[in-house]
Amino acid sequence: MTNTVISSRTKDVVIGFEQPFRVIGERINPTGRKLLAEEMKNGDYSRVEADALAQVAAGAHILDVNAGIPLADEPAILAKCIKLVQSITDVPLCIDSSILAALEAGLAVYEGKALLNSVTGEEERLEAVLPLVKKYGCAVIAISNDDSGISEDINVRFAVAKKILERAQDYGIPASDVIVDPLVMPIGAINSAGRQVMALVQRLRNELKVNTTCGASNLSFGLPNRNGLNTAFISMAIASGMTSAITNPLHAEIMQSVRGADVVMGHDAECSKWISLNRDPNAETRERRGKRGGRSRGRS
Amino acid sequence: MTNTVISSRTKDVVIGFEQPFRVIGERINPTGRKLLAEEMKNGDYSRVEADALAQVAAGAHILDVNAGIPLADEPAILAKCIKLVQSITDVPLCIDSSILAALEAGLAVYEGKALLNSVTGEEERLEAVLPLVKKYGCAVIAISNDDSGISEDINVRFAVAKKILERAQDYGIPASDVIVDPLVMPIGAINSAGRQVMALVQRLRNELKVNTTCGASNLSFGLPNRNGLNTAFISMAIASGMTSAITNPLHAEIMQSVRGADVVMGHDAECSKWISLNRDPNAETRERRGKRGGRSRGRS
Repeated sequence: MTNTVISSRTKDVVIGFEQPFRVIGERINPTGRKLLAEEMKNGDYSRVEADALAQVAAGAHILDVNAGIPLADEPAILAKCIKLVQSITDVPLCIDSSILAALEAGLAVYEGKALLNSVTGEEERLEAVLPLVKKYGCAVIAISNDDSGISEDINVRFAVAKKILERAQDYGIPASDVIVDPLVMPIGAINSAGRQVMALVQRLRNELKVNTTCGASNLSFGLPNRNGLNTAFISMAIASGMTSAITNPLHAEIMQSVRGADVVMGHDAECSKWISLNRDPNAETRERRGKRGGRSRGRS
Repeated sequence: MTNTVISSRTKDVVIGFEQPFRVIGERINPTGRKLLAEEMKNGDYSRVEADALAQVAAGAHILDVNAGIPLADEPAILAKCIKLVQSITDVPLCIDSSILAALEAGLAVYEGKALLNSVTGEEERLEAVLPLVKKYGCAVIAISNDDSGISEDINVRFAVAKKILERAQDYGIPASDVIVDPLVMPIGAINSAGRQVMALVQRLRNELKVNTTCGASNLSFGLPNRNGLNTAFISMAIASGMTSAITNPLHAEIMQSVRGADVVMGHDAECSKWISLNRDPNAETRERRGKRGGRSRGRS
C-alpha cells in the first residue's frame, strides 16, 4: 500500500491505494489555448488566476501548471504562475514542462513538496531530471516511454517504468515518490488502448507497488462526445487501480464519475461526500438531465 | 472464453467475454409500480407494450418480463405478457418470477431459447428450477445465495455459485447456460459492496469461466442521485469483466456509460457504434448537458 504525499505550504494531499482518487487539474496550460498563451506572454495572468480558482472550486486536489509558450521566457513565466497560484490557492501543484530550466525555476520558487511533470525513460531526461527531484525532494511523474519511443507492447512499457524506478532509487528517490504514467493512447487508432492501460495499471500497482496517473482525455482523441467516453474511461481506470489523473475538473460529468467511483471503491466513508454533494441543487439538475436524456432514448 | 446464446424466434443474442455488454431491460416489472400492477391485473397491457418498445429503442438487448402481482394469476399474466412482447419485438426475453408455475407457464409459450430468472443455491429452488431449465433447454441466472441467506463473505458467494454450476451439470445443463449474479448489495449499508462485486466477478470469470449479470441499481439503494452512482458502477463492473446487467435502458446516462465501456474494452470495432450514435442530435444534447453541468462546478 503506497502513499505519495504532495504538499503546498499549508496542505498535504496523499495519492494512494486506499485514498480517494486524486484529480490533477489540467487547465493552466497554454498548449492549444491561443488566447491564454498570448496573455501569459504579455504578463497578463488573470486567466491563470481564474482557471486556478475554478478548478479548485470544482474539486481538483492538485493543479498542473504549464507555461509552454513558443519564443517566450518559459522559466520566468512558469515561476511567476507558480507563485501566483500558490498565493491564491492552498492545493499542491504539479510543475509541468519539457524544458529543464523551467522545471528548476518552478521548483526554486515552489513552497512545499511539488509533483514534477515529468521524467521519461530516455537516458538524457533521466540524468537531467532525477538529480532535480533529489535536490528539491519532490515527487515525479514517470512516463513509460524511452529512447525507442512509445511501445504498443505493455510489457515494454512496464519494463521502462521499472527502469525509471530503479534509476530513481539509485539517486536515493523512494519508489513512493514516483508516480507512473502508463501512457494512454487514442482508442480511435488503437482498439486495445483501453485494455492496455487497465492491464498495465494493475501490474504497476501489484508488482511495482507504485501510484499511477495519466492524461485521461488522450483516450478519446479524435472521437465525438469525448466527455462521454472520458467519463466511462476514468471510472474504469479507477476500478483497475489508477490512483490519480490529469484531467479537466470543470467537466461536471467527469467529476461525478470520479466521485461515484470513489463510492464504489469504498473510498467515500459512509458515502458522506456523495450524499452531501448530491443533496444540493446539482442533484436536481442531474436528475433533470437524466430525464431529458431519457426522452431522447429513441436515438440514444 | 464463454458464450451464452439467448434467442427469440428470429434473433440470437450472445452474452460473452468478447461481446459488447448486454443490457437486460428491467422495466416490465410491476414491483413498486402500482399503476402498472393494476393495469396488468385488469388485463390492460398497453404500458407493457410501450415499455417493451421504448426499451428496445433505447438499446436493450434482452427484456426481462416479470408479472409478480399479489393476488393475481401470475402464471397466466406472465404468459400473456411474454406472448405480447414477442409479438411486437424481436429481442430475446428473460422470464422472471419467484413462482415456479409462472416460470413454467412462461417457458411453455416462449418461442426461442429464453433466459430464466432465476435459480439460487437453495436446495428446494435447485430441485425445482434446474429440471425446467433442462426440459426447455433455456439458460438460467444463478443467484449466489443459498439456504443460509446472502453471505457478506465473497468466498461463500463464490462457493454457492460453484455449487449451482455443479448441480446444473448434474442435470446436463452446460456451464455456458448458467449466468451468475454475484449479488450487488447497497453500498450505503456495506461500504465494501462495490469491491466485493468487482472481485467476485473477476473470480467467476477467471476460475469458473462463466458469464455474469446483476441488478446494477441495487448498489445505489437509499442514496441520492442514484443514476449518477449507477452510471459509474456499471462501467466499473464492465472493467472487472461483468458481461451483462439487468438495468433501466431508459436512462441515457447508463446507456452512454455502457457504450463508452464497450469502446474502452475494445468491443466496439473501430468505435463505429460510438461514432454513429454520437454524430446524431443526441451528441449535441450531451454536450449541452456537459456544459450546463460545468457552469455549476462551484457546487459540484
